[in-house]
Amino acid sequence: MIDAQGYAALDPTTPLAPFSFQRRALGEHDVQIEVLYCGVCHSDLHTARNEWNNTLYPSVPGHEIVGRVVAVGSAVSSFKLDDIAGVGCLVGSCQSCSSCSEGLEQYCENGFVGTYNGPAFGGGENTFGGYSDTIVVDQKFVLRISHTEANLAAVAPLLCAGITTYSPLRQWKVGPGQKVGVVGLGGLGHMAVKIANAMGAHVVLFTTSPDKKEDALRLGASEVVVSKNKDEMAAHLNSFDFILNTVAAPHNLDAFLSLLKRDATMTLVGAPASPHPSPSVFGLIFKRRRLAGSLIGGIAETQEMLDFCAEHSIVSDIEMIDIQNINEAYERMLKSDVKYRFVIDMASLKSA
Amino acid sequence: MIDAQGYAALDPTTPLAPFSFQRRALGEHDVQIEVLYCGVCHSDLHTARNEWNNTLYPSVPGHEIVGRVVAVGSAVSSFKLDDIAGVGCLVGSCQSCSSCSEGLEQYCENGFVGTYNGPAFGGGENTFGGYSDTIVVDQKFVLRISHTEANLAAVAPLLCAGITTYSPLRQWKVGPGQKVGVVGLGGLGHMAVKIANAMGAHVVLFTTSPDKKEDALRLGASEVVVSKNKDEMAAHLNSFDFILNTVAAPHNLDAFLSLLKRDATMTLVGAPASPHPSPSVFGLIFKRRRLAGSLIGGIAETQEMLDFCAEHSIVSDIEMIDIQNINEAYERMLKSDVKYRFVIDMASLKSA
Repeated sequence: MIDAQGYAALDPTTPLAPFSFQRRALGEHDVQIEVLYCGVCHSDLHTARNEWNNTLYPSVPGHEIVGRVVAVGSAVSSFKLDDIAGVGCLVGSCQSCSSCSEGLEQYCENGFVGTYNGPAFGGGENTFGGYSDTIVVDQKFVLRISHTEANLAAVAPLLCAGITTYSPLRQWKVGPGQKVGVVGLGGLGHMAVKIANAMGAHVVLFTTSPDKKEDALRLGASEVVVSKNKDEMAAHLNSFDFILNTVAAPHNLDAFLSLLKRDATMTLVGAPASPHPSPSVFGLIFKRRRLAGSLIGGIAETQEMLDFCAEHSIVSDIEMIDIQNINEAYERMLKSDVKYRFVIDMASLKSA
Repeated sequence: MIDAQGYAALDPTTPLAPFSFQRRALGEHDVQIEVLYCGVCHSDLHTARNEWNNTLYPSVPGHEIVGRVVAVGSAVSSFKLDDIAGVGCLVGSCQSCSSCSEGLEQYCENGFVGTYNGPAFGGGENTFGGYSDTIVVDQKFVLRISHTEANLAAVAPLLCAGITTYSPLRQWKVGPGQKVGVVGLGGLGHMAVKIANAMGAHVVLFTTSPDKKEDALRLGASEVVVSKNKDEMAAHLNSFDFILNTVAAPHNLDAFLSLLKRDATMTLVGAPASPHPSPSVFGLIFKRRRLAGSLIGGIAETQEMLDFCAEHSIVSDIEMIDIQNINEAYERMLKSDVKYRFVIDMASLKSA
């Protein structure tokens, strides 16, 4: 076994605190990674506080991991010592179902293994995430990072926020000549704006906060619409080829569905704790519109996304924190007081 | 102008009663049809009683029309005297927008003209439907009927119930090797079962009424699931390629969405007067499922459907009524006491 240090929640209400645990001994297909940076995703907070009622404690969150390879198993061919590598939301899946066969491990019919709180979906023991100094992962679930080293902290959020937005943008074939909406300018939304813009679409950012306008334009939006302004919204009726809705708080979906062209889709990537108001069936029927969901992305697509982002010089806008400030960061995240992703500098763990 | 006799609602609460009115004089592109049969759609009742808050009175319902051509305009090439012809839900559209250009007049960007209560969506004067002895329609919106004459009454419901189910089954590419669900065994559902079966799919009918089982199997379902039975439902989790939901009453959509495979769609063709409970976002996200709507069908597709049904000897199961019994038929329809569509024998109008 391999000794590991990290930060864990021991129950839903106590702040995260230092935690010693063990990683499995290196298997022949495993890669051991020294965690350099780990992004802070809203799912980390949901899980630490058991807001989805499925948390196994102790809980070590973190699934936006960038680090350095420090050991490889005897059968590992894809990685060597000192490689920079990434780990996202998945560290295992059955590898034999129809979804895994298509490279869609996130939809594994037998339940994927999450990077943390894994057994909630996959059976077996609990898994511990990236709020830690080291992690051991099967090479099939390790990603290559080709960004420059100066950017590595800002690459970390691509492993969840990046792929969660890239995957539906690809699935619904976003590209040049299309008008694409992004609802919400948080961690997911700001990645969606950057990626959809790099894919060549005309990007319209919807926000409830007029003061986000300048930032959205800087990030790559061509237009910004304040969604509380009915006149601004009405000007866009029936005009969108695709809308990616990143807002997890319950809100009126019809306001955005009505902006879709005939046959167009709005895809939800945020999962609200309580339901959205029920969408209007007339709004779907009269334009043959579609409402869909999308979950992160598969390993092959995550690699494609990382390569795409490296090619287009896309990283996340981040605020770096020490691990000792994680609880304060959660409180600020709840107030949307972050532009646009906290990333933990894991070197800070050694000073704990 | 052409004198016409029919039945109309004069306000939301008074029973339909005999009504004299005028059709427009025959234009050069017009076809005049003697109405032989007219199906009774639930939309007729919604409109007669102003349940969608958009009814113009007097209201002459009826958009499942089969009749005989009795006059043609000078520029009419597609129809001649004594032809058997059909008219469905549409009698006009702009003919120039992107939807009309693709033959999708039902999604006309400028609002199609309904066969009755037309201006609610299309501007201009009110239109009067098929509860009448004669109708004048532009040849572009008149359908050819190739079924045998003995079946003409049972063909009438194809013009709405048939195309409303055929169009989404085609749009979502239902065919051999697929497992397709149909929710509800009413006027729409019984057509969906027949058509999906003829398309080669394995059809599973969902109903809340165990006593509909035998009939569903007779109509072409391979399996019948009582949707109130949780064990029966659980046996079908994640297994459907497509589900067509024909139920207009508010109900739990998640019970059916959870039966879809990854990437599969449930399409709604019923429009409830009050909303369905809000569907679970997790249910959409975790399998990248889609919830959609679909509205009747375009003229070209309606002709394709009629030809398909003639080729496969598909008609509606009907109960013929006299026009004098229309109000009683509405009450029975509200109790789902019809197998599966009332059709008015318009010869009865002459005995009024």
